[in-house]
Amino acid sequence: MHFLRFTAESSSNGVVERDFILDGIPGVLWSPASGADRAPLVLMGHGGGTHKKAPAMAGRAHLLVTGCGFHVAVIDAPGHGDRPRTAHDEQEIAALYRARAAGEPEGPIVVRYNDHLAELAVPEYRATLDALQELPEIGADGPVGYWGINMGTAIGVPFVATEPRITAAVFGQHWPDALAEKAKRITIPIEFDMQWDDEHIPREGALALFDAFASKEKTLHANAGKHKELPRFEADSAVRFFARQFGRAVTVPA
Amino acid sequence: MHFLRFTAESSSNGVVERDFILDGIPGVLWSPASGADRAPLVLMGHGGGTHKKAPAMAGRAHLLVTGCGFHVAVIDAPGHGDRPRTAHDEQEIAALYRARAAGEPEGPIVVRYNDHLAELAVPEYRATLDALQELPEIGADGPVGYWGINMGTAIGVPFVATEPRITAAVFGQHWPDALAEKAKRITIPIEFDMQWDDEHIPREGALALFDAFASKEKTLHANAGKHKELPRFEADSAVRFFARQFGRAVTVPA
Repeated sequence: MHFLRFTAESSSNGVVERDFILDGIPGVLWSPASGADRAPLVLMGHGGGTHKKAPAMAGRAHLLVTGCGFHVAVIDAPGHGDRPRTAHDEQEIAALYRARAAGEPEGPIVVRYNDHLAELAVPEYRATLDALQELPEIGADGPVGYWGINMGTAIGVPFVATEPRITAAVFGQHWPDALAEKAKRITIPIEFDMQWDDEHIPREGALALFDAFASKEKTLHANAGKHKELPRFEADSAVRFFARQFGRAVTVPA
Repeated sequence: MHFLRFTAESSSNGVVERDFILDGIPGVLWSPASGADRAPLVLMGHGGGTHKKAPAMAGRAHLLVTGCGFHVAVIDAPGHGDRPRTAHDEQEIAALYRARAAGEPEGPIVVRYNDHLAELAVPEYRATLDALQELPEIGADGPVGYWGINMGTAIGVPFVATEPRITAAVFGQHWPDALAEKAKRITIPIEFDMQWDDEHIPREGALALFDAFASKEKTLHANAGKHKELPRFEADSAVRFFARQFGRAVTVPA
């Protein structure tokens, strides 16, 4: 058994934010301030080089909590946020910076480093889900989603491929190399984001990863623009996707 | 000058439906029953073999009128709905049925027949827009959208490519052959639907047509499923797209 230890709590704009530690891994749980009934949970995975409370994470959590009444949790990935970097982390980050400075492709480094982090993170996500389902406001019977783009997809695809409790997921913006074989084992409804003019991920690679999912119900959202230009309205779309999958009403912008 | 003649009016569930005739072409205009202020207009194009009041048209109009307060208009395409079929129409329809019965590709016939109909329909759509903008509840200054899938895209792409009054459009589910060159002249925001497992339109062809649009802001929605399985939630998405583009609040399902 794994037990969450809550270390801090604050509340603003209808959202309760609780920091937690589980087996030494720092995480955050956002919940409706109104409390009360059990509600679905969405686990999120943050992007490479960011952390559990990065603006993208807090922003998505706000939409899910205030728009749908869901619980939302993220943990820091290995080597990220409040977690120490290993010598291997430092090597890989240095290799990435060197490639960038030399104008060489980032893909091979990101793919192998994220694959390494995913091996560490998948059991951490499983333990986090175990522990969160012990909380009375979440419980073991409710629907659970996963939402992670970029490195959040590198961790999420192997996690979801081996975790039957996840029943809907939003992925996107990663290479197929390490993920396509695992995606073939995923059959739940999927929404998948890619950038049509991504300067790092080849268009054919992004389409191949989307194609690999075995889900009968899957939607690709491809937007014009470069890697970092994923439109903000795709976050609203993802929130509606979870609301639709989990049979909840939703209040989000158009 | 072209003048609309209204021939029938009815009202239900907050939507006023007015049939009209313009230069012998039958159309329908749906408007908010609340009336009052000027509101944006969305022109729609129906699919092949259907007509201006087919369920898909009436359903989308209901979403746009009750969800956003927009006006919505459709006209029957040449040879469709209440309009007579020519000998050429009959030949092409017979050719399509023969191809279907023989298990041969429909694409070449649909592409050439729709291209022919588009040549006739584009000036009709332009005249319809001229006349609708004479109505005080629409006016000449408000935003105008276009929404057409299948044959509605075959007509809409050449229409929008030559019609600067259209400032946002939803297209999808057609071949690139007759349309890609025209799509290259379109720069307005676009939402584009395709079916990932379309048995008629090759995946590469659908992606090539999306790619051809010169729009800086364009979104591809590709859903798993066959040609006729476009999910209903894509209609809600299109309504939100127009609401976003035209700066309107929206009330539609998740």
